[in-house]
Amino acid sequence: MTLAQVPSQMTAVVLDSYSGVEGLRVEQHPVPKPGKDEVLVKVAASPINPSDLAYLAGQYGFKNPPPVIPGGEGSGTVVAVGPGMMGRYFLGKRVACLSQGTGSGSWAEYVVVSAKGGALPLDQSVSLEQGAMSFVNPLTAYAFLEITKKGGHKTIVLTAAASALGQMVNRLGRSEGVQIINVVRREAQVDLLKQQGATVVLNSNEADFDQKLRDVCHQTEAHLAFDAVAGSMTRQLLDALPQNSKVTVYSCLSREAVQAGADHIIFEGKAVEGFWLGPWMTGKNIIQILLMWRRAQKLMAKELKSEIRARYPFQDAKKAVQEYQNQMTGGKILLRPNQ
Amino acid sequence: MTLAQVPSQMTAVVLDSYSGVEGLRVEQHPVPKPGKDEVLVKVAASPINPSDLAYLAGQYGFKNPPPVIPGGEGSGTVVAVGPGMMGRYFLGKRVACLSQGTGSGSWAEYVVVSAKGGALPLDQSVSLEQGAMSFVNPLTAYAFLEITKKGGHKTIVLTAAASALGQMVNRLGRSEGVQIINVVRREAQVDLLKQQGATVVLNSNEADFDQKLRDVCHQTEAHLAFDAVAGSMTRQLLDALPQNSKVTVYSCLSREAVQAGADHIIFEGKAVEGFWLGPWMTGKNIIQILLMWRRAQKLMAKELKSEIRARYPFQDAKKAVQEYQNQMTGGKILLRPNQ
Repeated sequence: MTLAQVPSQMTAVVLDSYSGVEGLRVEQHPVPKPGKDEVLVKVAASPINPSDLAYLAGQYGFKNPPPVIPGGEGSGTVVAVGPGMMGRYFLGKRVACLSQGTGSGSWAEYVVVSAKGGALPLDQSVSLEQGAMSFVNPLTAYAFLEITKKGGHKTIVLTAAASALGQMVNRLGRSEGVQIINVVRREAQVDLLKQQGATVVLNSNEADFDQKLRDVCHQTEAHLAFDAVAGSMTRQLLDALPQNSKVTVYSCLSREAVQAGADHIIFEGKAVEGFWLGPWMTGKNIIQILLMWRRAQKLMAKELKSEIRARYPFQDAKKAVQEYQNQMTGGKILLRPNQ
Repeated sequence: MTLAQVPSQMTAVVLDSYSGVEGLRVEQHPVPKPGKDEVLVKVAASPINPSDLAYLAGQYGFKNPPPVIPGGEGSGTVVAVGPGMMGRYFLGKRVACLSQGTGSGSWAEYVVVSAKGGALPLDQSVSLEQGAMSFVNPLTAYAFLEITKKGGHKTIVLTAAASALGQMVNRLGRSEGVQIINVVRREAQVDLLKQQGATVVLNSNEADFDQKLRDVCHQTEAHLAFDAVAGSMTRQLLDALPQNSKVTVYSCLSREAVQAGADHIIFEGKAVEGFWLGPWMTGKNIIQILLMWRRAQKLMAKELKSEIRARYPFQDAKKAVQEYQNQMTGGKILLRPNQ
């Protein structure tokens, strides 16, 4: 079923090899067709996320034979649906969409996503621009707080805490009464988070960082860390946390393997595990997802809002990705169709 | 309460600094006095375990200011008890004992242990020599099988599989219907385990080890590994196991930090955690411990039996430890009082 006139060709960002920004070009590309329980979204906006950079470098959780269209999430309007009950509900609706790892991403004028979890309706209070950033960061922040509360934790440690996600976790933590021990790399990030109301922010480049982190983890009885850095940071976290703690690694900004002291693991009851949004959502049924989605959409006005620092047409994707790589904090960069 | 004449001095192995076998000497030492809920055991025999070597090097889970008496486990007769109900039950009994990390170990003519879990009665079918090796290896093997079965696993991977513990896990696994994927370092160990009835034994020094391990883990759907090596072996295991697997590190024979690929942790749902016998037992109540102990003692005749290759008096502890360090497989070495 097709609502509007859908052209046969579209402008798309294409990755020719998993070599980072160098592998990108922009071309005319056939508009994909929705299959069973799939919908075709006319894209309004799509952000550049850290997970997109990992994908471009071939270091993300899925990898299709190139050429592929990158872009993990976005927003738009459903203009066509494939066979199946689920799709029909979405026809004509404003949605947020999440790519499914099939090689058809959201950095293009049109994207096909699953009607079963790959597209969710935007609340009327959420703009298409904010809505383009509804999935990855907001639901990850939501998940972290859910995991925190289910585990009975009152304090958590958060690395790369000045990221867009880190700021969301801080805002959500404050509104839910969870104390955050923030770890950043630069003094300017300390100031930023403190201005926003964070009380504990440590700079990992300070000489006494390890001792300070250890002290505050023990004082606050923090037993859970969410780590976006991996490498030696995971080991520093394990070292600082009291016995019977867990480090949940969810990104690998250091691009290094996870390190852990054997003592931490064997004698101190500490463990390392991971978090990935997709499988976490797959563990929920449709009712749980819709309830969570509704709550998260309502929080998009404040706790789960993203700052936007620049907008680029798809034609300028390479420049946009370069700019984001150079500075990953300080607001999101959106890719958009020509208007 | 004291049963027999207890002298004031005893022959004891003493560690002056956590520098391995070099830190050892043998001296006359005051016989320790049992406190509340503690018992004094006249030691009959005490083995040298891999965990003792880690302790001598200062790399075990507890560390007291030297000089300390090493020795993690042993057997003997309870000759005196401190105040408290628990101790009295043991007076005069043959027991196995487990050191409590207080610096009073079993490489001495007398040792004080807790009456609450540090001493357990030997079954009449178990000799004092076998009984000296009742705790560390048998209960660890027992724990591995319990963890395996509770987790619904039918196949597990085991590194350092030719060790005394590894052989026990194999025997117990066979009797419980659990398939073991054994990993060893030498061809002679492959032969040894196969002679004993193991069907899958891989040599980690073979060129195609990684591929072979991966193939067999996927074919048998193994999702759990018990790793005594740590370092890069943990990473090799994570790499070989299918998604949503766990590596449980219980020793660190490589003396290297635990390594894990960020991909394994973040995207493949794999986790690293530890096992230490003490906390595992602490998680059980006294009834559970006694039931487990009774079953394990009955299995000491076959599945949980240790081979003994040499016996040394405490005076020759240094030589004995050196001999064990040079060859950690091929039977246990016992330390004993002069007879």
